[in-house]
Parts: sequence; C-alpha cells; structure tokens
Amino acid sequence: MNASPAAVAWIAVDWGTTNLRAWAMAGDRVLDASARPLGMGALKREEFEPALLETVGGWLSDGRTVPVVACGMVGARQGWAEAPYVDTPSRPLDAARFVRVATADRRIAVTIIHGMCQIDPADVMRGEETQLAGLLALEPGFSGTACLPGTHSKWATLGRDRVAGFRTFMTGEIFALLSEQSILRHSVGDASEPDEGAFAEAVTESASAPGALAAWLFSTRAQGLLGTLRPAEALARISGLLVGMEVCAMRAAWIERPLVLIGAPALCGLYARALTLLGARPPALIDAERCTLAGLAAARRLLAG
Amino acid sequence: MNASPAAVAWIAVDWGTTNLRAWAMAGDRVLDASARPLGMGALKREEFEPALLETVGGWLSDGRTVPVVACGMVGARQGWAEAPYVDTPSRPLDAARFVRVATADRRIAVTIIHGMCQIDPADVMRGEETQLAGLLALEPGFSGTACLPGTHSKWATLGRDRVAGFRTFMTGEIFALLSEQSILRHSVGDASEPDEGAFAEAVTESASAPGALAAWLFSTRAQGLLGTLRPAEALARISGLLVGMEVCAMRAAWIERPLVLIGAPALCGLYARALTLLGARPPALIDAERCTLAGLAAARRLLAG
Repeated sequence: MNASPAAVAWIAVDWGTTNLRAWAMAGDRVLDASARPLGMGALKREEFEPALLETVGGWLSDGRTVPVVACGMVGARQGWAEAPYVDTPSRPLDAARFVRVATADRRIAVTIIHGMCQIDPADVMRGEETQLAGLLALEPGFSGTACLPGTHSKWATLGRDRVAGFRTFMTGEIFALLSEQSILRHSVGDASEPDEGAFAEAVTESASAPGALAAWLFSTRAQGLLGTLRPAEALARISGLLVGMEVCAMRAAWIERPLVLIGAPALCGLYARALTLLGARPPALIDAERCTLAGLAAARRLLAG
Repeated sequence: MNASPAAVAWIAVDWGTTNLRAWAMAGDRVLDASARPLGMGALKREEFEPALLETVGGWLSDGRTVPVVACGMVGARQGWAEAPYVDTPSRPLDAARFVRVATADRRIAVTIIHGMCQIDPADVMRGEETQLAGLLALEPGFSGTACLPGTHSKWATLGRDRVAGFRTFMTGEIFALLSEQSILRHSVGDASEPDEGAFAEAVTESASAPGALAAWLFSTRAQGLLGTLRPAEALARISGLLVGMEVCAMRAAWIERPLVLIGAPALCGLYARALTLLGARPPALIDAERCTLAGLAAARRLLAG
C-alpha cells in the first residue's frame, strides 16, 4: 500500500503508551498504514508533533490541511494534551469533549478523543472507548458485554448505544510480573507456548476458590520443585489461574447475555476457552484493529457532521 | 553479649535465601548472636563453609567440635547440601531425615534440617517446619492453625504433635511486585506507612469478591488518577486487598479454631487486624525468632537424644 497525498481524506491514529499507529483513510477505507515505537510513555510534550509528522509525513502535501483523529494515552495528563474523561453512563464518544491540539505544521489538524471514567467502582479507560464506539458502529444496537483482553482487560456493559459501566482487570500485567519476575519464573523457564490441558485445569481450579489465587500460584512453584510440572505447564497454570479468576468474577456480565471479545486473536482465544470451560456460550470475536478503525471513523463522522 | 568458646554447647543457625543468622547456645539459652547477609541465594556450594566460619568463628576453639544445627534454604537443592522434604502429615522434625554435612574445619559438626512437602495441593516449606516444631515446644499439645505471614505466608494445621497439612500464599511477594513494579507504583509514590482506614476498607472489599482482585487493584490506580486517593491509602489498599483475600480463603482454618500468628510484629499486626475484621477472635502472636530458636533447640535435643 502507498497512499498518494491527494487521496488521503483524513488520518486515523491509535497512540498508546508504547506505540503510535496511523492509517491514511478515505472515508472508512484504509489507503495505507504506518507505525512507530513512539508511544506516549517515551515522549516529552514538544516531541508529539515531530513524532506524528515522522509517522504520517508521507501522506501530507503543502497547502492542504488533513484532519487527524487520535485516541489512546496521547490524551492522558502526561500525553500531548489532556482530554478529560467522560463519566459513565454515556455514549462512548462525545464530540463536545474532544480536544483540538494546536500544531506548528498547518498540514495537520489534530483532534484527540477523551477517555472514559467511572466513579464507583473507580475506573478509567483511554482508547477502549473508541473500540466500543467501533463495536457499536459494526454491530448497530448491540446490547450486552464487551470484553477487551489485554495488559489491563476491560469489561464494558453496553446498551442503547451507551456504555453503562465497566471494570478493568490488571490480569495481563500481573501475568507478566509473575511469570518474568517472581519466584515462578524458575518454574516457567523459557517456555513460551502454554500447555492447553494445564490451562484448562488451572481455570477450573481458580474458579473453584478464586480467593486462594496466591496459594494456587505457589503450588505451581511447588509442583515444579517436586518435579511434576513442565515449564509449558507452569506457564499455562499462571495464565489459567489469572484468566479463570477474572472470567469467574465477571460471570454476571456474560451468563445469558451476549458477549463479544475484542482483541488480539491469540489472547481472545484464551479468554474464549476459559469462558466456555466455565459455562459461557462461545463468544463472538472481533479483531481489535477493526474496532479501533471503526471507532476512529465514527469519531471522524461526529467531527465532520 | 559475647560468648566464651568454652561456654558454647552448640550453635543454632537460621540460613535463608538472603541472610545467615547464628546464635551461640548453652542448652536453650542464647549466649551470643551473629548475622551476615550471606544468604544461600548468593553462595556457591564451596562458599557455605567459609560463610559459616566467618559468622560463628569467634565462638570456636581448637581441639573442640561444636555441633551446628541449621534450618532453612541452606538445605535446598541449590544450597549447601540437599536435605529432602518430609511429606505431610508428619511431625515437623524427623531426625532420621536430617543431613550431616562434611566440613574441612573439624571444629564444627554441621547438621541441616529437612524441609516439608505436601503432594496435593502441591506445597513445600524450608525453615517453617522448624518454627512449627518451636511452637509445639513452646505450647505443648497445641492443636489448631499456625499462620506464618511473610514473603510466602504459610498456614499450617497442627494436631497430635503433627503437621496435618499446609498452604503457602505468595502474598508478600505479589505485594512487593505490585507496589514497586506495576503501574500501581505511581499511586503509591514514596508512601511507606499504610493508612489504617484504607487497609480495613480494602480487606472488607476483597473479602466480598476475592475473584475481582485484579479489578480492585486497578480501581486503586483509577482512584489515584481521579484524584481521590493519597499514596498512603493506595499502599494500604494493595496490602488490604491481598491480605484480605488470603485470610478470607483460609477461613475454614481459623473460624472457631485456635489460631497463632508467628512472625515479625508489624506484619503479624496487619494479619491480626484483617482476621478480626473478618470475624476471627484476636489471634495469639509469637515472635518468629523465638519459634525458630525453640525449634532449633528441639532439633538439637533430637540429635543429642
């Protein structure tokens, strides 16, 4: 793919903590894509504009201003410009709360999408509100639960085009800490592919007594020491215990309600397995990037309209 | 304190992963104490004897052999000499399973105490079996539960002079990872003293839905971002959520059964608070070092007798 600047109607940007990803768009159609490891976490305020220009410069031409619509951590307090949270319940996108950022380069007109927050239980999201808007654009009238597995998994309840509420689980981050930095790293070794049988067993175990998580985890170490557990099984146990606990805690959100998983296929596959093991119907899966793009396009329409 | 070599009948040693602690003993009486940061984790096999001599050398004299009784990670596979696990149920000390280590220096005669294991749920301990033997020496006939809070908290069920079973919770290690290395470190800041009110609230919250741990944790971060939580409260919340979950999972082990806490006073205080908040009677507290010494003395008597 290679977009001629004349064909680029607008630019979609997903700007997270570690990566900046951009798409040259014509309506809902992707003309070109570009990505840089220039996440918000590594940038000072004055470095955002140069980072964006480095990524999308090839799609710009002199004398013409292209709208750029960005979601994600770029709108955090430590980002380019703070785009305050919209409180739940609310539609996922509220154009009145988007933030326009002034740029030195007049070829771009940058708008940053707000995040969402919830007061009780306290919770926040940035970027996922755009994916939820994308889900509602792809599945108009969707009413049910959306689960977005990841470093910080989100579970959002949707209905009447609104986000009723949501909860975030630090499951992915805890998994990384435990498997890479805790005593359990010795049992995991250099395993990278979790064992499917051990994953299923751990999901069931964790769901039977979720409060004993810290004990199930140590038991994984003990099984390693007593010589009855292979590294791929240890890795799968840590993952299964944590995912099982999360899925089990959210039972009310998926039992007899439509559930859609939004995320990377491999991770969604793990969640789908845990869900069906615990009695859910097989959930629908939607690719995360597809939702992000649909959500950014919806934001673009709100701006244009 | 300063022990004359002639008065030292034997030497008690608690040799963990990070520290080596030794006591010059006459019967059950402590004549002198010595400690070095020469834990098993930092030593190659041939470095154990020099580390011990550096620590206890002042208590030795030529022409006389002093018995040294050691417990802890020194007996692990990566330690000085492997002292295999004794399976539960069992008395906490089994002299037939102690391991004699040959030394070049003939002034010491070193014995290492075995660890304990359990097959289902898989679990292991090293050092705590000696503290449990100490508890039984200090409280003959004790029947109930002993909780040893720490990096890896142990809960052991005792009766008829035996350890019936036990479970280990990685609570302390998970607390350290979350408060120092996860995204929650931003909410904790440089707080070191947890807020008491926030601790109590988090214990109750966690006990109400232990499976939602990863969500309660993220909610702590969100409260920080939304500006409603001070660092000392964030620290207390992480601690309260984890300790609450552990105490709640072990309810069957303390409800209407005698419970004793063995450990450092501050940490035991936290556990005692969580226990009483969740409906336990105030537990008895015994200092960890007192139990270790009583247990090593019991091991010494088994060897001598």
